[in-house]
Formats: sequence, structure tokens, C-alpha cells
Amino acid sequence: MRTIDWSDDKNCIVFVDQTKLPLARHIVECGDVDALVEAIRSLSVRGAPALGAAGAFGIALAAQTSKAKSPMDLIQELEDAAEILRNTRPTAINLSWGVDSVLRKAKTGHSITHIRELALGEAKAIADEDVEICKKIGVNGAKLLEDGDVVLTHCNAGRMACVDWGTALGVVRSAIEGGKRIKVIATETRPLNQGSRITAWELLQDNIPVTLITDSMIGHVIKSGTVDKILVGADRIVEDAVFNKIGTYTLSVMAKEHKIPFYVAAPMSTFDFKKRASDVEIEERDPQELKYFGDEQIAPLGVKVYNPAFDATPMENVTAIITERGVFYPPLSFEELKELK
Amino acid sequence: MRTIDWSDDKNCIVFVDQTKLPLARHIVECGDVDALVEAIRSLSVRGAPALGAAGAFGIALAAQTSKAKSPMDLIQELEDAAEILRNTRPTAINLSWGVDSVLRKAKTGHSITHIRELALGEAKAIADEDVEICKKIGVNGAKLLEDGDVVLTHCNAGRMACVDWGTALGVVRSAIEGGKRIKVIATETRPLNQGSRITAWELLQDNIPVTLITDSMIGHVIKSGTVDKILVGADRIVEDAVFNKIGTYTLSVMAKEHKIPFYVAAPMSTFDFKKRASDVEIEERDPQELKYFGDEQIAPLGVKVYNPAFDATPMENVTAIITERGVFYPPLSFEELKELK
Repeated sequence: MRTIDWSDDKNCIVFVDQTKLPLARHIVECGDVDALVEAIRSLSVRGAPALGAAGAFGIALAAQTSKAKSPMDLIQELEDAAEILRNTRPTAINLSWGVDSVLRKAKTGHSITHIRELALGEAKAIADEDVEICKKIGVNGAKLLEDGDVVLTHCNAGRMACVDWGTALGVVRSAIEGGKRIKVIATETRPLNQGSRITAWELLQDNIPVTLITDSMIGHVIKSGTVDKILVGADRIVEDAVFNKIGTYTLSVMAKEHKIPFYVAAPMSTFDFKKRASDVEIEERDPQELKYFGDEQIAPLGVKVYNPAFDATPMENVTAIITERGVFYPPLSFEELKELK
Repeated sequence: MRTIDWSDDKNCIVFVDQTKLPLARHIVECGDVDALVEAIRSLSVRGAPALGAAGAFGIALAAQTSKAKSPMDLIQELEDAAEILRNTRPTAINLSWGVDSVLRKAKTGHSITHIRELALGEAKAIADEDVEICKKIGVNGAKLLEDGDVVLTHCNAGRMACVDWGTALGVVRSAIEGGKRIKVIATETRPLNQGSRITAWELLQDNIPVTLITDSMIGHVIKSGTVDKILVGADRIVEDAVFNKIGTYTLSVMAKEHKIPFYVAAPMSTFDFKKRASDVEIEERDPQELKYFGDEQIAPLGVKVYNPAFDATPMENVTAIITERGVFYPPLSFEELKELK
């Protein structure tokens, strides 16, 4: 099953609840935009490309469930849903991109039925396309990996972060499909442990060798010479920086220090041609994420917490960006990339 | 109460069980060397200087509880206990140092009673001296901190890692005592969360401002310009490296990248004049530490885990080492330091 999809039978979104992994692979049937917003906020649905599909299906869902009596009222409702969905998580650009793509298509409809058809058709196309894009990213990136490579990755930029296949882990999958032996080192990725809970789980499912470390171990492991390449995903790429899960910037500095390549794998939809690094809002999440682990208290409740979810890696620390349209080596020409997108 | 001490009333070691913090400040009365060994292994007693005292009290305890009939048999028993204690945790040098100091003293005794007196007297002296040493480290280090400084620390090199006061956090305490306003940023310190559980707790107890972050956030926080100095403890210092909690090396690289001072605070007993970095064994701990959080499973049980407890920071990344005998700036003259010790 895809990580996120549309069920024609039940006329709703279906997705794997990622907060339950690795203990359970729980499938959620989501027939309500408010519930989808909550699922995105709680990271039941997460990962930049998967959020693109979630945003797209969210607008389709809003169209399906609307009680609007006129096309104009329906479009207004979709605009309102779009506004809520876009603001659920501010840093990942793909969410807005998915929302806006479907909204734009819906606006070309001339009846309620037609708008619904267009919205759902576009959302399904985005999801299908995401799988194709990841496969292309995989093929393009696989050329950068050599037989025997050990790849260190952070967070989860795999099948579970996309509709299927993955971006960073898609590259690993494609390399393995091409006959190369690749091993992965996965960082735990605190505070929400996407590395230990999701990356480790999804790689084990595919029998891809994976070793788990804590975020604090990256320097020691890289210095030991074990790591050949670092490969991560991205939540937003601007001309001067890559925004990705908190911890990515530190990894990029360690890669530079030890002269190993630092690759970012992401679809073209991750590029933001309008903003620069200083304009991007970094989402700060609930301090409770550092005070509790599940139900277990792990810090004094009175402590002040800083909990940014993303950081910015300056483009000069990036060896290359792997996309479905090819591999780009900074400094990037954003004018040329804009043409491609 | 001191973190670890001797109870004359109960003729046993008493210490704060650090695995229970911050939820409870549980005091353990330990009247048995095997129980002490287990407490050290499970990190109920932890922190390089505290381990020095634990080793010292351990030999005193072995002497007190021995049923040996002759001084020679007693010394043999102490030698056996020393061997077990020394091997409990291989990386921190202070444990062996405490053990050996008391053993050496005990060997000068001429009767069972005399050996017992000498061993306990020496262990108590080591504990008392540890407090004095930490205060001196504090005074020496405080000169390096300026009013208004934000200090980032890793793991726990505080009161709870020593008999009292602390090394890195002792410097902070002494600076504050001297009228400087100092704020601390504490890293969570995975996998055992000494930062969130112990450092955050002990600083809050003293009303020292502290902000908790995950290990993955260090790069982002340092790049933002918030951190004025990095200040950590040490488990073993050799001519070419400082061994400390896993994650310290990465911090030292981030300090270098962002041109902020990287200070190590430790007693002279932390110096190992015999070994070089490549000779030091790095303790690897149980993979379960990354698969479970308390009782909660946080990774697939089948995943391979690498769990080193320490790393080596090359001396060229260290701005200065703060000791009770003064502040030393690398490159160090180990010949001169040996004289001082």
C-alpha cells in the first residue's frame, strides 16, 4: 500500500499513521478535512512529498464533502480549506504546493460535479506523479552511489515520507535495484525519532542493511571513516539554503570537515523560487516533545525548551541536489531551475 | 547532601540513584561491592569525578565488609575488588584512579583494623578533596566567562557527576557566585538523557537559567549566534585527545566552524600520561538503550545498533582545559603537566 492514497470505495483519504510505527502499521481512513489537519499537525502524516499529496487530497476531500449549493460557494470553501491546510506546517513547501495545484485545477470547473471531478483527478495525478518522480530521483541519484557504499541518512526521507519509494532512501533503493550493495546508517532523529521509528523500520521491511545511531554519534561515526556519503531529503530549497529536519545543518558541517559528499534528494516541487533563507519561517513545536517520551517524563517539567523542527543548510555545504530533472551542483542557477520546473 | 558519600552510622556508601532523576531523588545505601559494581554499570552512579569517589569508597567498603583473617588475605581481597571495579567502565580514568589511590594506601597498613582505617580515611579524603578541586576548577574557569554569557554544555558535568559543585557546571556556579549572569543551554544527550534528566534538573534546583535542546539542534543553535562558549567535562584526557560523552567531538567541530571557544573542565586526575587516543578503549553499551525508552519500544527490535558511550575530541579542537592547577592551552606539555599532578 502507498503511504497516502485515495479510497474510491470509501470516498476518503487513507494513510499509514506514522506516529504508531514501528509498533503497528495502523491505516487511517480520513473523511474530514479537520481530521486531516490534525493528522498533519501530529505528524501522523509527514514527510515533504507525502505532505504534498496530503494537501492535494485535502482539497479533493473538501470538494467531495462540501454541502455548497453553487460552484462559487464551493470554490470559496476550497479557498478556506486551502488556507487552513497551508498553515498547518509552515516550513515544508510541498504542502502548499499540493494544495495550490489542486485548488488551481478546481477553479477551472464549471459545475459542482465538475469541480469535484477535477479536484480528485488532479490529487490522484499528483500522488501518481510523486511515485514516478521518486523513481526518477532514484535513478538519477543511484549514479552517485558506488557498490559497497555506506550512506548516512537523517530523519526519514523514504517511502514513508512520500507516496512510495522515497527521495533519499529512493536513491538507495534504486542503487540496490541496480545491483549495488549499499548499507545505511540511520540517525535516531530526536525529538520525534523518525529515524529509529520509521527509517529503520522501512529499510528492515525491504531487507536493506541498516544501523541505528543517536544524533550525538554522527561526528564519531563519520570521523571513524565508516561513512562514504551523506544523503538527506529536503522540506524547502531556496537559492541560498536547504531547509530540512533539525540536525541536517550539523551533518553538513561534519561532511565538510571530513570531506565526504553531502547530497540532498528532493522533487522539483521542493524549490521555492521566491524566498531566501532569511525569509523562511522555521516551525517551532511543542516543548512537551522534549519533556515526555510517550507517557514517560524525561525532563523536569519546569525547564525551558527550544524545539525548532528544521534548520537551514547553506548551499555551499551541499555537494549536489538530486531531482527528477537531474543532479544539480551548487552554486545553482535559480533562473535555469525555474525554467525546468 | 553530596552525590556520593560514606555513612559512618550505617557503615556503607550512600549515593543518589541518577537513573531515577528527575522524577525522584532516591538515595541508595550500598553495603556491598557487587551492588556498587552493578550501580556503576547501570549508571546509578556516573560522572568521571563521582566514579573516582565511587572507586575509592568501593575499596574502603570491601575492606569494611571483608571476613579475611589476615592482613595479607585482606589485601588480596582488595586487589580482587579493585580488578572488578576498574573493569566496570573502561573509558573513564577516574574510576581506576580512585580505586588505585585507596588500594595503595591500604597496602601500607599493618593490621586488619589499620588497613580498614587507612582505606576509609583515604576514600573520605578523596571525596573531600574532590569538592575542593571542583571549587578550584570553578574559580579558575570563571575567569573565562563574561557577564551575560550563554554557555552550551553536553551531558552532565555538574554536581551530580562529582561529589559536589561540578566541573563544567562548577565553572558556571563559580561565575554566578562571582556576580556574573550566565545562562546555560543543555543538550538532551542521547541515548541516556543525562542532559535532560540530570543537568536540567540540577540547574533548576539552583535557579540557574537553563534551556533544553536535543543533540540534533546544536548546529542550528550555534549558527544562530546564541552560544558564547561551549563547556564540557572529560572522562579521560590524553596528550592528543579529550575523551568525553559521545557527541562532544561533534560539538568541538561546530565550535571551530563558528569560532567560539571550546572549554574542557576536569580535575588533574583525568589526565592519562601513558596512553594516546588510539590506545583508549571506547565503551560500547547495550543496543537496548536505543531500542527502548524506559519500557517503551522506540525502534524495530531487529535493527542493528551501534552504541559507543564516548568519543575522542582531538586536542587541536580544544581551546583550553580548566583544572584545579590552572587553565592549560593546547598544545599541552605533558611533561610539565605530569610534574603538576
